[in-house]
Amino acid sequence: MPVNYSTPSPDQLLPVAGIRLGVASAGIRKANRRDLTLLELAPGSRVAGVFTQNRFCAAPVQLCRKHLGSGAIGSIRALIINTGIANAGTGESGLAAARKTCTALASLLAISESQVLPFSTGVIMEALPVDRLVAGLPACQAALSADGWHDAAHAIMTTDTVAKAASRSVNIDGRKIAVTGISKGAGMIEPNMATMLGFVATDAAVSQDLLERLVQEAADESFNCITVDGDTSTNDSFVLIASGAAGNEEIKDAASAGYVALSQAVVAVARELAQAIVRDGEGATKFIEIKVGGGNSPEECRQVGYAIAHSPLVKTAFFASDPNLGRILAAIGNAGIEDLDVTRVKLWLGDILVSENGGRSPGYREEDASRVMAAAEIIVQVDLGRGSRESRIWTCDLSYDYVKINADYRS
Amino acid sequence: MPVNYSTPSPDQLLPVAGIRLGVASAGIRKANRRDLTLLELAPGSRVAGVFTQNRFCAAPVQLCRKHLGSGAIGSIRALIINTGIANAGTGESGLAAARKTCTALASLLAISESQVLPFSTGVIMEALPVDRLVAGLPACQAALSADGWHDAAHAIMTTDTVAKAASRSVNIDGRKIAVTGISKGAGMIEPNMATMLGFVATDAAVSQDLLERLVQEAADESFNCITVDGDTSTNDSFVLIASGAAGNEEIKDAASAGYVALSQAVVAVARELAQAIVRDGEGATKFIEIKVGGGNSPEECRQVGYAIAHSPLVKTAFFASDPNLGRILAAIGNAGIEDLDVTRVKLWLGDILVSENGGRSPGYREEDASRVMAAAEIIVQVDLGRGSRESRIWTCDLSYDYVKINADYRS
Repeated sequence: MPVNYSTPSPDQLLPVAGIRLGVASAGIRKANRRDLTLLELAPGSRVAGVFTQNRFCAAPVQLCRKHLGSGAIGSIRALIINTGIANAGTGESGLAAARKTCTALASLLAISESQVLPFSTGVIMEALPVDRLVAGLPACQAALSADGWHDAAHAIMTTDTVAKAASRSVNIDGRKIAVTGISKGAGMIEPNMATMLGFVATDAAVSQDLLERLVQEAADESFNCITVDGDTSTNDSFVLIASGAAGNEEIKDAASAGYVALSQAVVAVARELAQAIVRDGEGATKFIEIKVGGGNSPEECRQVGYAIAHSPLVKTAFFASDPNLGRILAAIGNAGIEDLDVTRVKLWLGDILVSENGGRSPGYREEDASRVMAAAEIIVQVDLGRGSRESRIWTCDLSYDYVKINADYRS
Repeated sequence: MPVNYSTPSPDQLLPVAGIRLGVASAGIRKANRRDLTLLELAPGSRVAGVFTQNRFCAAPVQLCRKHLGSGAIGSIRALIINTGIANAGTGESGLAAARKTCTALASLLAISESQVLPFSTGVIMEALPVDRLVAGLPACQAALSADGWHDAAHAIMTTDTVAKAASRSVNIDGRKIAVTGISKGAGMIEPNMATMLGFVATDAAVSQDLLERLVQEAADESFNCITVDGDTSTNDSFVLIASGAAGNEEIKDAASAGYVALSQAVVAVARELAQAIVRDGEGATKFIEIKVGGGNSPEECRQVGYAIAHSPLVKTAFFASDPNLGRILAAIGNAGIEDLDVTRVKLWLGDILVSENGGRSPGYREEDASRVMAAAEIIVQVDLGRGSRESRIWTCDLSYDYVKINADYRS
């Protein structure tokens, strides 16, 4: 059961002019399950992406990087996404399978292999059944529709318990611009369902330079702020598409009102998709926002936020609604800031000041913290007392069910 | 139930000439429970220690550092250890309580405050009931005995399910030298029982310089190679004492046979104590050794070892005896070695070659890995294929009981 999240209905997801989606059941790993998703992009659509930093990055990720890096701007015409098998840890044969996927789709759509971006998510170190995948492509093509977002959100799920999608509409130069996206993931890395995929599209016209800036900016404000269990998967990908079909004058200037409006909408969609992943985190019963301020840099604030969010002890305490908050102090002290003066650190749980001057705050009463911890949504706030920068992380608790899901998966 | 570990019997623990131990029930947190341990050191005993890197280090750790740093060599005469309350995250009043502990014991033993090293382990951010502690000191003193190691091993336990102690005897210059130690801890950080304490004593005479070298060397080969959940507590301390009472000629040369023999015995004791912590790890059902070789430095090998050992996904797979080994590849790829060539990485489970050339090894059969994973002791071996350095980490699996212990603790 996700924490305060449900999938938007199909009519809440705005079509994006220039983008059509189609899904099919190709039997990649299981029969009778939608596991193949095609995104068709109008000619001239621009695409930018950010990908996993894991050195064991999956074969499709390697091809995505190559095709995005080599082709002319605006040349990408299709994205193909399979679930079931991650095609990671599969060596040369995995790369050949990903290439074959692109070739087959290119031939079907009368484009070239390098105009296709492939994505896979599922079990690591098992071979992609590329023939079954290729056999499913015509069904995807036949299903292509501008209203395919809702179906696509479902077809890219693996251990997700809920499909994740979000939409915003924004006015730029008097034109109504749509921003719609989908994501999947139920851990930064799931069982070994490698893992986080996010696709966001807009019909706005925007320069390639700004699109690349925006995809990084949006990732930093969304998918790069979440953690379930601290692992980074072999397949993590976040792609931003701008079809330009809305007909606005191309946005070229980061200071322009158009860029500001578009980036706000894209960040909002990406953040909703990212938070949905945490809300649907494996075994999650609580959604926790960790705000760290008073730092010398956003990076050190993130470091502290992640130290708290990754601590199994902090996460189990949240699961138990036990205000065992010394664990948070220990995590802060353990975050790797060499010259942290702990006597200047302050810690709040919700609006309760828990700790200051290196110890328990005089006014702190455990029953107040218990009340905050009983809620399904909790804010932890830390002031490092050494600067004015801040950062924020979203995470979930660690429950019996996390172990159950990850121990039982596959069997 | 610890994995293949039980406490040595009292007669297996060699007394160390010059060291006496006494325990008492002071009612620090719970009544009728041995929670206070005194180690009395003969005059001239040398002491060296390594302490937590956590910035929220406990008040007693701050005093230990001060007393070890300020006094003359050979001036430390007593160690006092309480369980129940960690006296961490307690600010100025915590420091005053630790100081009062030292003053009271100093007065009892007719020594000075700076000749006492205090240690605490237990709940963070709660006040140490220093009056009850002080009231328990005479009982500790009355109980002092050279045969107190077994009792002391029990009295320093918190959530440990088993007392941890080890002994070795070694011949130096024709004299029989004893090395005996005790440790506590059931996680790198336990619920919030902050956490790992280790005390090893020998009657060998050894120079202060070499003792300081040896405590670091022994820590690096033992307590610094273990992890249960990746947290570093506010109270971690490892102390090495050399009373010199054996009457050997003082060991001053790291190349001497005496140093080699002594260091082997100390490392063996420290390693047994450290491994006992992992074997007694919270919820542990498996003991896992991770050997990483073929690295450019021991540090990068450790980095990879810890990335594997800290991955909740790897740990839950071991709990489930599920050879879901792509998770280990993902952890290796996620260890932060920027220029790792994954096509040169090899992975073995026991003697089964699982992965090579960036993918699954052709001869690998999952049923072979299942057989290895069913055992209570498992060796994971990684060859990074880029150098000749190596390192090794000991850890345990992540089970339902880990969550249960850490969620239910305190309630």
